[in-house]
Amino acid sequence: MKPLQFAIIGYGGMGSYHAKTIMQKSSEVVAVKGVYDIKSERQDVAQADGFLAYESLPELLEDETTDAILIATPNDSHKELAIAALKAGKHVVCEKPVAMNTAELDEILAEAKKCERTFMVHQNRRWDPDFLMIRQMYQEKTLGDLFQIESRVQGANGIPGDWRHLQKHGGGMLLDWGVHLFDQLLFLIDSPLQTIQTDLSYILGDEVDDGFHSYLTFENGVKVIIEVGTTNYIPLPRWYVKGMEGTALISDWDLNGKMVKATHEKTAAPKPIQAGVGLTKTMAPPREDATEVLSLPAVETPYPSFYANFYDVVVNGGEPIVKNSEVRRVLALLETILAKGNN
Amino acid sequence: MKPLQFAIIGYGGMGSYHAKTIMQKSSEVVAVKGVYDIKSERQDVAQADGFLAYESLPELLEDETTDAILIATPNDSHKELAIAALKAGKHVVCEKPVAMNTAELDEILAEAKKCERTFMVHQNRRWDPDFLMIRQMYQEKTLGDLFQIESRVQGANGIPGDWRHLQKHGGGMLLDWGVHLFDQLLFLIDSPLQTIQTDLSYILGDEVDDGFHSYLTFENGVKVIIEVGTTNYIPLPRWYVKGMEGTALISDWDLNGKMVKATHEKTAAPKPIQAGVGLTKTMAPPREDATEVLSLPAVETPYPSFYANFYDVVVNGGEPIVKNSEVRRVLALLETILAKGNN
Repeated sequence: MKPLQFAIIGYGGMGSYHAKTIMQKSSEVVAVKGVYDIKSERQDVAQADGFLAYESLPELLEDETTDAILIATPNDSHKELAIAALKAGKHVVCEKPVAMNTAELDEILAEAKKCERTFMVHQNRRWDPDFLMIRQMYQEKTLGDLFQIESRVQGANGIPGDWRHLQKHGGGMLLDWGVHLFDQLLFLIDSPLQTIQTDLSYILGDEVDDGFHSYLTFENGVKVIIEVGTTNYIPLPRWYVKGMEGTALISDWDLNGKMVKATHEKTAAPKPIQAGVGLTKTMAPPREDATEVLSLPAVETPYPSFYANFYDVVVNGGEPIVKNSEVRRVLALLETILAKGNN
Repeated sequence: MKPLQFAIIGYGGMGSYHAKTIMQKSSEVVAVKGVYDIKSERQDVAQADGFLAYESLPELLEDETTDAILIATPNDSHKELAIAALKAGKHVVCEKPVAMNTAELDEILAEAKKCERTFMVHQNRRWDPDFLMIRQMYQEKTLGDLFQIESRVQGANGIPGDWRHLQKHGGGMLLDWGVHLFDQLLFLIDSPLQTIQTDLSYILGDEVDDGFHSYLTFENGVKVIIEVGTTNYIPLPRWYVKGMEGTALISDWDLNGKMVKATHEKTAAPKPIQAGVGLTKTMAPPREDATEVLSLPAVETPYPSFYANFYDVVVNGGEPIVKNSEVRRVLALLETILAKGNN
């Protein structure tokens, strides 16, 4: 099979990461033909990295030897570029967040339908191994039914870069990391969202949020906490999940962590402990034989890679793993949160 | 000075803990004259512990040699017993939660005023060393202004004992541990509460809550998370607080933990790290010279012990550390939460 030939618009952090790393890993199905960046210094970097640098956006779009375009520019330019690429007859992969709002996304999707081209959003964190571990626990009931899922991503470096500080470019942490974490959880939980309470943080004095705390309840009883922070000098664990039979914790990106499960051994009541100036039996550790400590489960990626799937959708009419209806649902949610928070 | 002579009503877990531990530590100001428990086996335990066991409640109340009564019975009996004790001319210390609702508390306070007796609630966790550390950081701005405070108490033993499972006795975790954690935070933060969102957990199938997640915002910008859980096989840290200059974490009752502060050294940007299937600079650890790791601060209790203060209030007309207006404010808050949650 012949790989799909890609041109990349935007050779900043994500564009170059796609070109040099992600797409190379899927070289059987996709290849980078060339790139274009509005900044001449990034054009130079692209050439130094061994890629053809198109002289202009029209030149890129009009290259008849390419099949698809990857859009890796600031968020406020996605819509215009996506529509131009679709009109030029190209399939499109777009970085997240897909657009500034659902109205923009709907324009893109209408154009994709009209042009009969594939449009897919690079929600790559559905492939994160930590997420896949949680997904496996949820689906296989490793700890019984999971009823609480806490997903946290915390750093101490503030908001990165330049355009991510600005509202007009779609900056802020809800649209940056939030879109990943909400996408993961809504992809995971097969039940309608019932309630959501979100508080955006503006500690750094930017016009966009530097993090948030969100509390979600689903109709099937699952409760979710999503937190993103950029002012956290000590990060809390990446994942903390509670099931009817135990608790699991994934500390970090290196997948350190553990599961603790109830043994259901007939065991003595816990021994009260001194807790501050009082005694507590409720918050005392269970007796040793009442629980067992287990390693986190091994997990394999249960679906093809993003670009293998994109190839399958484009060439064979396969089912996309990242569905536009799912992307739209997440964007609608974030839009509602921002409309409340930024007023 | 002559210690205040106490009689104790209720010789369960808390009553005996007061008699044998707390009041003995304050033996200069208080002494236990005798106890009464409705259960004959607990009367036997009291005698075995070396205390006089009154034959009946009236006998206890009518003992002219006592000055004060400690009430350590299930929550739904506090009001009746408090009023009876006040009418008998006794000062009263009452275990938490003070009453089933503010209407009951108001009856007690009216009676205390009429009888000109002191009524104080044993909100002992204002003396917890972990809380006092956080209080000191907040007041002395050890990490700059604290703008986020997370207080968690998590166990895996479910709801303890018998009456704490029942609504009519004022059971459930919000009234048990919640009343402590809300009391600490409202005592600490010198600003009006702006918003509160609480979700009660009923995972264990009891008629009362087995834990909760609460998110509070205050007018001065401080945000607070309070969580209590009884189905957590791995506990998250007891305290996690964020200041403008750093983050502190107290892991457990043994006061393990640390502070990480910004150094404001002119340092290189953080090096991106692999995070799942992507790269991140935002969530990468800061460069080594950008932060410093510090031990938790040493802290001394900044006010007299509960019973020393009670003595001062009764004998010298001193100012109570646990004010009834503060107790009422917390109870009103919990009452609102329960009214929403238990309907």
